[in-house]
Amino acid sequence: MTQHSHPIALRDATVTDAFWASEQELVRTQVIPFQWNALNDNVPGAAPSYCMHNFKAAAAQNAEHRKEGKSFVPPKYTFRGFEALPDDPKHPDPDKFYGFVFQDTDFSKWIEAVGYSLTHHPDAELEATADAAIDIVCAAQLDNGYLDTYYILNGMDRHFTNLKDHHELYCFGHLTEGAVAYYEATGKRKLLDAACRFADYIASRFGTEEGKLHGYPGHEIAEMALVRLAEATGEQRFADLAEYFVRQRGQNPLYFGKEDRKRAEQEGRSFTLDPKNYTYYQADKPVTEQTEALGHAVRAGYFYSGLADVARRTEDPALLEACERLWRNIVDKKLYITGGVGGTRMGEAFSFNYDLPNDTAYSESCAAIALAFFARRMLEIKPKSEYADVMESALYNTTLAGMALDGKSFFYVNPLEVVPEACHRDERKSHVKPVRQKWFGCACCPPNIARIVEDVQQYAYTVADDASTMYVHLYMGGEATATLGGAQVRLDVTANLPWSGNGSAVVHVDAADDPRFTLAFRLPAWAGGEDAAETIAVRGRSGISREVKDGYLYLSGTWHDGDAITFDLPMPVRMVSANPLVREDAGKVAFTRGPLVYCAEEADNGGNLHLLHADVNGIAVDAGSVKPEEIVFHAGASAQNEQGLGEVERTDMRMVVLHVPAWREVTETPEHESLYHAWKPTRRESVVATLIPYFAWANRGEGEMTVFLRD
Amino acid sequence: MTQHSHPIALRDATVTDAFWASEQELVRTQVIPFQWNALNDNVPGAAPSYCMHNFKAAAAQNAEHRKEGKSFVPPKYTFRGFEALPDDPKHPDPDKFYGFVFQDTDFSKWIEAVGYSLTHHPDAELEATADAAIDIVCAAQLDNGYLDTYYILNGMDRHFTNLKDHHELYCFGHLTEGAVAYYEATGKRKLLDAACRFADYIASRFGTEEGKLHGYPGHEIAEMALVRLAEATGEQRFADLAEYFVRQRGQNPLYFGKEDRKRAEQEGRSFTLDPKNYTYYQADKPVTEQTEALGHAVRAGYFYSGLADVARRTEDPALLEACERLWRNIVDKKLYITGGVGGTRMGEAFSFNYDLPNDTAYSESCAAIALAFFARRMLEIKPKSEYADVMESALYNTTLAGMALDGKSFFYVNPLEVVPEACHRDERKSHVKPVRQKWFGCACCPPNIARIVEDVQQYAYTVADDASTMYVHLYMGGEATATLGGAQVRLDVTANLPWSGNGSAVVHVDAADDPRFTLAFRLPAWAGGEDAAETIAVRGRSGISREVKDGYLYLSGTWHDGDAITFDLPMPVRMVSANPLVREDAGKVAFTRGPLVYCAEEADNGGNLHLLHADVNGIAVDAGSVKPEEIVFHAGASAQNEQGLGEVERTDMRMVVLHVPAWREVTETPEHESLYHAWKPTRRESVVATLIPYFAWANRGEGEMTVFLRD
Repeated sequence: MTQHSHPIALRDATVTDAFWASEQELVRTQVIPFQWNALNDNVPGAAPSYCMHNFKAAAAQNAEHRKEGKSFVPPKYTFRGFEALPDDPKHPDPDKFYGFVFQDTDFSKWIEAVGYSLTHHPDAELEATADAAIDIVCAAQLDNGYLDTYYILNGMDRHFTNLKDHHELYCFGHLTEGAVAYYEATGKRKLLDAACRFADYIASRFGTEEGKLHGYPGHEIAEMALVRLAEATGEQRFADLAEYFVRQRGQNPLYFGKEDRKRAEQEGRSFTLDPKNYTYYQADKPVTEQTEALGHAVRAGYFYSGLADVARRTEDPALLEACERLWRNIVDKKLYITGGVGGTRMGEAFSFNYDLPNDTAYSESCAAIALAFFARRMLEIKPKSEYADVMESALYNTTLAGMALDGKSFFYVNPLEVVPEACHRDERKSHVKPVRQKWFGCACCPPNIARIVEDVQQYAYTVADDASTMYVHLYMGGEATATLGGAQVRLDVTANLPWSGNGSAVVHVDAADDPRFTLAFRLPAWAGGEDAAETIAVRGRSGISREVKDGYLYLSGTWHDGDAITFDLPMPVRMVSANPLVREDAGKVAFTRGPLVYCAEEADNGGNLHLLHADVNGIAVDAGSVKPEEIVFHAGASAQNEQGLGEVERTDMRMVVLHVPAWREVTETPEHESLYHAWKPTRRESVVATLIPYFAWANRGEGEMTVFLRD
Repeated sequence: MTQHSHPIALRDATVTDAFWASEQELVRTQVIPFQWNALNDNVPGAAPSYCMHNFKAAAAQNAEHRKEGKSFVPPKYTFRGFEALPDDPKHPDPDKFYGFVFQDTDFSKWIEAVGYSLTHHPDAELEATADAAIDIVCAAQLDNGYLDTYYILNGMDRHFTNLKDHHELYCFGHLTEGAVAYYEATGKRKLLDAACRFADYIASRFGTEEGKLHGYPGHEIAEMALVRLAEATGEQRFADLAEYFVRQRGQNPLYFGKEDRKRAEQEGRSFTLDPKNYTYYQADKPVTEQTEALGHAVRAGYFYSGLADVARRTEDPALLEACERLWRNIVDKKLYITGGVGGTRMGEAFSFNYDLPNDTAYSESCAAIALAFFARRMLEIKPKSEYADVMESALYNTTLAGMALDGKSFFYVNPLEVVPEACHRDERKSHVKPVRQKWFGCACCPPNIARIVEDVQQYAYTVADDASTMYVHLYMGGEATATLGGAQVRLDVTANLPWSGNGSAVVHVDAADDPRFTLAFRLPAWAGGEDAAETIAVRGRSGISREVKDGYLYLSGTWHDGDAITFDLPMPVRMVSANPLVREDAGKVAFTRGPLVYCAEEADNGGNLHLLHADVNGIAVDAGSVKPEEIVFHAGASAQNEQGLGEVERTDMRMVVLHVPAWREVTETPEHESLYHAWKPTRRESVVATLIPYFAWANRGEGEMTVFLRD
């Protein structure tokens, strides 16, 4: 039996290093208050969310029903489009539902981030606000446990009849994630109990048994949320429901096909079942038959995360194999170098193998986050540094790029190449924004970034289920506490990631006897993989055994209070090519250092970045020719001001930039040259390209950007 | 005053060379009969056109009204969508209109091609069929001259109320083009008279005068059709109407804005005028203020053609300047090397300057044809070889690529780079077909190709309005007869284009006195431009003056019967780069020879064409290293068989292919390599790339293709 591991409870891990602590501060001070205003429709100039409005309307309706002592008589269901808006945005009807069908999740994502934030930053005012919001949300719950304001307000006669499109189980999943986080932060059970009641209602309605619905979520998340609920409450029944959802998905006859057929019949339309139509939902075939990561990338990432959770708990070889197969497909054929996924805007989806366009990329922030979820769950199944390499890349590059350095504007789409004129004038790129936006009507990415940044330390450490080993997956300054070898152990990590690979981990043991346990440190691919083991030393100690396995250095033995492990992971600049089957990267190179992918911006390198070439042969001959330099990066003007959401503050950040030997094609006023001409040798001008970390792009106004340079 | 020129009447010019004569045969024997079946809904497996059905229905309705001696009482208008189809495709309601709003043009384009065909291939049966069709069409005309079956059948109460979208003036334009062609071929006036009556009705309704509609066509063509009608009939009033349409277009207040506002009011929608919404129609501002070719590329090309016609006749400097300005923008910034235009599928439109993607190109066959229309009209204003260079490229490359070598299948979209998997799996490229299709529901391209191929000789010659000069714009085997210097002169041309630049033009003068006139031969850019003048000689003659001007060699003097001009235009292989501002072509080269652009196909070069590089330095050092070779090209399997339109015949063609020194990146089973890896020098394998003419691509089944090779 493999030894699985689990994350350290959030309260037992802190992050204090300059890098992540400041990201968490941004979220705590900027994003969470903004979110609260947004979901209460209090952001001047932004489209109202109507999220709390909906909960209040549902709560009022419930109260009315209960007062009258009548049994619940729902309004008759009428579908008003995927986004229902009031005639007068300022005066919504107090009884009506508004917003997307998944609008409830605006609250759930906020309460999840709040939970994480309160864990380490007690804030009585925020907690009181959250408690009041929870009261409203719980008041909206029906007596049977059902809690989705869309159907409560629009007509319960149709609830659970359009699982494919109507997100009830998605809302449940987010509610549950938020409820667990808030419970773990505060110990308050009210929302957790509501989630449990909703879960039990769902369990009473779904299953393989005769008379139950054989369905599953149209947008996954319930699977992993249920496992989390099971692990927070110790109740196996929630994990069983997750397992049912994972196994039932895509079974014949296809449930979404049945739903669609029924709807077509009701509307007098003809219907032909085509399983391909359900690929978007990962519901065209059972997961054990899925060989390729396909469909909507966020849905897919959430599903694979739930799959991994269920596979870990059940240890079903077929499910474990499915995890590994889908992981391999993503990592070998569908992953951007920035840790992003989703090559096409069509369905915000995985494209086909090796189709990774830079300029029309979708690479949604949420999809990178979903990939980090999946990666951590793969680590929980089996610690293998590749999982952590991908997770780290997704976190440091695409996830962080999703948010401006001032925390006030966000990317939904994270391209690897941008020419602003093309974004403005080429409708094929109309999804690609050259500057971050303030907030979105469909606000999935900003709160998703908020919730993963606020608990990023849960991605740094896991502890083996037998409490023998603590794994350090990410090198992040802070503390991690766990019971290891029967003793309370605190690891006090100092790190300088992502700028430098050196640091230390000091062991604190608060026990009479020195406990025996293992500390396993990841050997990142960027540091040379297993060769990097030699840069990790236990200071002044003998008797600690060293073993390298699956990209981790296992240090085992009896530990004393004050033992210190020092590490000095090499962080060379790497010049990287893509597999030749990636057409869009042919003849190009990218530069990375540590976990960071770098990019060239117009602000440093001038426009027409397609004429800038890395001097690859020069660089290859002289490995030291690319110079890292620590600078203070002056950010500002990161945000679109269309929505008039206030001025952008200047935000400076200490970071390492790269100076890369390069050359530019010299063209004299090309706009006066003919469109086609006889080939002539390129005139070159030597230049030094300045590359900045990808996560920091688009913080200095609008301009060209490219991750890959021509070689 | 500039001396303008005009094309030689079709009956006075023949084409007999192996190349174009066989293209015309294809159209005559394959396309025209197929078209007739298509517009009579007689193509098994293809979507019915309902074109003749509609004319019959309208004719029957007219007959009914006339029989009853009543004034016309139209049905009340109901919009049934842009494509109205019967419930049962096989049993359409005999009284109803079906198809697109412009379905009438299926007939008009057919009759135009028939006219051209009959000019040189009398065919009593075809002519009888055409006459019978004309009888039906004319019977559909209302007493007031109006003739568009969409409104005649759907409700005349709304005719001319949606010029922007509803194509009435477009249908008029095509009808007129067809009517003139048929009249010139057969001398029969029936359809011409119908067109004149329709034109007069339009003139009675449109104009700047109070009480008239101040509108203009939503899809241009009426402008050039009216000038043609004026020149065929000698009636200035038709040219005046054309001038009105050209000048009125885009004037404030915007007419389409007024239409849209009115419709919005009727439907209770709000409306905000945004001129940008009319850029698609070239109707956002007056043509004299238009500085960039924008919007739907076919509309634009037709409009610029009509503009050039009107500019030529009025000699208005502002209109002439607009022609030149729009021409320059296209040729300097928006033209594919293949003579195609339209960089984006969004609106099938011109993209922004220098945005010429190869793989997502639209480059509609009809847009290249429209560009040839425009170019010939620019030549009529002033002979300048650049116009003919572009016209020739559009004809030989994109126009011909639009049709399979067997004449049985067609491209709507003409990409410069195709990876079939991307076409099938990447919805961004879903408009790009890797193999030609049998016929289209919206069948614009096949009949458009038919009509331009059948009268291609009208693009080869023009005669100065003062009958002093005959211009040879294209070198095409055949005869051209005109009155020059007071005598009937026949030029008998032998040519071997596009494979070789040699040939002769023998002068036949049937007059007592030797007349004085000028023969002006174009000096193609591909032959070295004006330097090529020296390869053109008047055999054994003196007393003929030679002058080179604007890329033409003017041979002037007294000519004798039997005088022969020989030409031997150099046809070197050219390695061509695009302007560095064309991002998609950066670091790439294309190969051309004579008027032909070449491409690499998977059938000759294997797949993964992005790994194939032209050895540009080797080629540049040894200009002779690219070897042209004459081969017999075995075509076949050109057509998609989805619609089951019959078997594909094998079609062989003698052509010149190019053998280009190249190298391939050597990759060992890249599908087993990681997605990203440290850069390493490329391993190269020398190969010889075989390039075929672009027009012949996709005649050997499905495979990759690229015009540009990496350098």
